[in-house]
Amino acid sequence: MSDPADMRPLVWERGVLRLLDQTRLPEVERWVSAGSVEAVADAIRIMQVRGAPAIGIAAAAGMAIAARTALEQGQPVDAALDQAARTLGQTRPTAVNLHWAIERARRVGLGAPDAATAVDWLDRLVERLLDQQWAADRALSELGSALLPFGARVLTHCNTGALATGAYGTALGVIRTAHEQGKVAMVYVDESRPRLQGARLTVWELTRLGVPHTLIPDAAAAALMARGEVDAVVVGADRIAANGDVANKIGTYAVALAARSHGIPFYVAAPVSTLDPDTPDGASIPIEERSPDEVRVVDGIAITVPDAPVWNPAFDVTPAELVTAIITEHGVLEPPYDEAIRRAVAAVAE
Amino acid sequence: MSDPADMRPLVWERGVLRLLDQTRLPEVERWVSAGSVEAVADAIRIMQVRGAPAIGIAAAAGMAIAARTALEQGQPVDAALDQAARTLGQTRPTAVNLHWAIERARRVGLGAPDAATAVDWLDRLVERLLDQQWAADRALSELGSALLPFGARVLTHCNTGALATGAYGTALGVIRTAHEQGKVAMVYVDESRPRLQGARLTVWELTRLGVPHTLIPDAAAAALMARGEVDAVVVGADRIAANGDVANKIGTYAVALAARSHGIPFYVAAPVSTLDPDTPDGASIPIEERSPDEVRVVDGIAITVPDAPVWNPAFDVTPAELVTAIITEHGVLEPPYDEAIRRAVAAVAE
Repeated sequence: MSDPADMRPLVWERGVLRLLDQTRLPEVERWVSAGSVEAVADAIRIMQVRGAPAIGIAAAAGMAIAARTALEQGQPVDAALDQAARTLGQTRPTAVNLHWAIERARRVGLGAPDAATAVDWLDRLVERLLDQQWAADRALSELGSALLPFGARVLTHCNTGALATGAYGTALGVIRTAHEQGKVAMVYVDESRPRLQGARLTVWELTRLGVPHTLIPDAAAAALMARGEVDAVVVGADRIAANGDVANKIGTYAVALAARSHGIPFYVAAPVSTLDPDTPDGASIPIEERSPDEVRVVDGIAITVPDAPVWNPAFDVTPAELVTAIITEHGVLEPPYDEAIRRAVAAVAE
Repeated sequence: MSDPADMRPLVWERGVLRLLDQTRLPEVERWVSAGSVEAVADAIRIMQVRGAPAIGIAAAAGMAIAARTALEQGQPVDAALDQAARTLGQTRPTAVNLHWAIERARRVGLGAPDAATAVDWLDRLVERLLDQQWAADRALSELGSALLPFGARVLTHCNTGALATGAYGTALGVIRTAHEQGKVAMVYVDESRPRLQGARLTVWELTRLGVPHTLIPDAAAAALMARGEVDAVVVGADRIAANGDVANKIGTYAVALAARSHGIPFYVAAPVSTLDPDTPDGASIPIEERSPDEVRVVDGIAITVPDAPVWNPAFDVTPAELVTAIITEHGVLEPPYDEAIRRAVAAVAE
């Protein structure tokens, strides 16, 4: 991983998913190997792999592993896929890419003429998803970069780079491409409490990529905008409802409100697999609530009174009216979003 | 300190200021004794004592210690007070109470007929400031509580309790009084990165006081409001300009923007000593920027890449138009603030 352009945190070795453990970065670059459905589900659950597109690909790998294991053990592949779909589908509720990838894998596996073919097709599907993600990330990053001015000072939240997609990155891909085009003066990185993906992962990626950046507490983003130091906000998404409401990392909504107050464009960069036409609006998106200890404890150190009551939602919903545009690999969607989203999803399904 | 009503984090023993070390809470209740101007200045600088009113009282204690030391060493008291005023005045730039208390102490000391009287008057001044702060906190807390509905779910930021004033508390005093009156259903506490005064200090105080509370990441406040779970926001202030612009802990502005978007009243609770008619507006308030390591490191543990560039402002400015009312011991000030602030300051000066 000496060339940052080669940063690929998900490596598929047919039967084993190797992944860069995102709970240990930036201190330790540790790789883990997941060779069973349970191992993949655990890796998603404890966030060794995270980011909506990346967990989708990881889940598809889990499906492929399920089929292979069933074949090797002389068990029925179809039943194994159904079981694996349930296990993997319960790991995290908000990101729709997870369900999208699981369902796609299930259909591929069930459509195969025999067990050996199912395994082969699923192995290839994981490879194809990784390639497609790379292509989607690159395409939306080009489209997104075109929206940024030269000398752009961009604020982002959480982590949406290679680590989040297993490929090139979405919102951070936009920033990466804009940087390669010489357009980026500064990237402001929200630390993204409680899991600190901004501080831990985005700063690590931007350091490797040589992109100028400044880490800020989440609570400082609005003040930074008030000083006139932000030209655009670009964030990712875990699920985008049919009306354009965006579920993303907790804190995204506060950033969107502040951007609106300061007349700063607020862009959401996400592959079409993040669009969910079956969910009418943000109120219908299930929001995962995670352990209080993610807030109470940082790296094993308690930062509050033991057993302090905590509210720890992993995501929030930014209403469509605060979103300037949604940047996908099938074009930059603008309001009204319902029609634009339907068209983008239909284009990919073709 | 078993009776929470007796929580007094500043104890003045004429010549020595004893203070509860706020950098060690909630893990350790450690008291430190400051017996020199430098020791008091250091305690303010490293935030063993913090909160605008409390650092004002601590600085006055530093002035009294300076006079006593000069008397004991046969040095001129006036020169010692001038020197101490400079040393103490440079510790932290934003809170105006600091300068207000130093100037008040300087005038008391210089106005005394002889050195021994100056020491006596300054010792008594510190006692009077502590008493006045208690009276001011109690008065504004009563006025503030009256603004809250029964069953109130209140959100607050940072710490504004006994620890922040050396007395009863400002914004947290309002909440404390409202709780005693049976009005508080829930207090939502922003953790208040980077120093985590909400998680470390406010949760500790509310636990001792038996007030129902829930700790949240700062970035979750807007999402909580969107769920309809916040009836009012009450925060403190480090300086309020002549036009009503409020400097307070970084993140306050983002909370105010979110409160405005959801039609939630946003109250600032502060003693009149926080009002600064000599500063025309928020743009004129000096904003302290603190060490990057406050963001990079939590309790000795690095949470990002070493030497990551950081922007770490201690405060931000909330424009007056976002402030529903300013709750002081001399009444609840409402817009337009300039005239109301002038009147409140004049009332206290009489």
